[in-house]
Amino acid sequence: MRHRKIKGAREMLLAHEDYAVAEDEAIGKDWDEFFGAQRPLHVELGTGRGKFITGMASNCPDVNFIGIELKEEVLLRAVKRARDKQLHNVAFIAGNGARLMEYFKAGSLERIYINFCDPWPKNRHSKRRLVHRGFLEMYKEILTQKGEIHFKTDNEKLFEFALNEFSDSGFRLRNISLDLHSSGFEGNVTTEYEERFAALGMKIYRCEAYL
Amino acid sequence: MRHRKIKGAREMLLAHEDYAVAEDEAIGKDWDEFFGAQRPLHVELGTGRGKFITGMASNCPDVNFIGIELKEEVLLRAVKRARDKQLHNVAFIAGNGARLMEYFKAGSLERIYINFCDPWPKNRHSKRRLVHRGFLEMYKEILTQKGEIHFKTDNEKLFEFALNEFSDSGFRLRNISLDLHSSGFEGNVTTEYEERFAALGMKIYRCEAYL
Repeated sequence: MRHRKIKGAREMLLAHEDYAVAEDEAIGKDWDEFFGAQRPLHVELGTGRGKFITGMASNCPDVNFIGIELKEEVLLRAVKRARDKQLHNVAFIAGNGARLMEYFKAGSLERIYINFCDPWPKNRHSKRRLVHRGFLEMYKEILTQKGEIHFKTDNEKLFEFALNEFSDSGFRLRNISLDLHSSGFEGNVTTEYEERFAALGMKIYRCEAYL
Repeated sequence: MRHRKIKGAREMLLAHEDYAVAEDEAIGKDWDEFFGAQRPLHVELGTGRGKFITGMASNCPDVNFIGIELKEEVLLRAVKRARDKQLHNVAFIAGNGARLMEYFKAGSLERIYINFCDPWPKNRHSKRRLVHRGFLEMYKEILTQKGEIHFKTDNEKLFEFALNEFSDSGFRLRNISLDLHSSGFEGNVTTEYEERFAALGMKIYRCEAYL
């Protein structure tokens, strides 16, 4: 999907210094200090307009949430959403999910959320999928010993790929849903993308992978 | 599905003593002795007309295969198929898959196949599903330390249930297919039911669970 470039989006974004952190500033940052409170840290890769992560932050005040999103003009919407909700336990990095290792210390994340990431359907691009075993090995480094990855997609092939990559990489699986919105799963926080696709009757796949 | 009762099916079946074993005789049987050769033992629960297990037995002469099937008139077809193919590494028990523990010693099976078992769709019947955790605990007892369960179904809900039961019961998963016949999976041996359903364009789900 292409997004309209907003002139000066970067400046507008970084003006919200309570919520937005530039990529370079995120490197090696002390997140407890940033939030002014030591809490478990959950990170969403590709946070988009932030519906999911601000919803989670509302529901779980005892957790610090960080959303990572490359597109600054999209992230601006997420920042405004967090500000309008007056949330104090969520922030955003205008950066690249693949650079996670630079933003967080090894063993420091309790949970990583990957929601509706790019499926990269061609086999020769499989290494770019955020659930490829290359990334999973990286996540293992950065997760706590009991760390978890929560994964959602509307792409059946990507979900099949993810289940196998998780399993082969030594993650255990639980709460696997092949049709989330018709399952009995409770407490699901939707993304904007998810709402649109579920409304069209498309299946949503979800699982939790844990160490 | 109802099957035509064949008069004297039991007698006809047990006349093929190289291939068919009555339920009572299967209890505590020495299978190495029965086959006259010590080989890894693979068992299929609900073997039907035996297309799958005789196909496997043809492909893997170094493994002993046993198919369990309750319906004697159905099993008669499986026995005839094995005899026509002159297979010496496959036999059938006219018995109940749920009584596995009586037919085999603890730690004696390398692999259990569960193909297109009854999905028992109502929640209150979930314990009857052959992939319910109650059965999985039983299979664990009877499998070798590196034992495996290979599971196929055309029922999405049952597959979802199975993935979760396997995971929660401490099995690891691999080779998960959400659409087996359009996947790149090689070496699949089909059942008669599977051929019929795949031909109708229905998806076949498959996974391997291992200890």
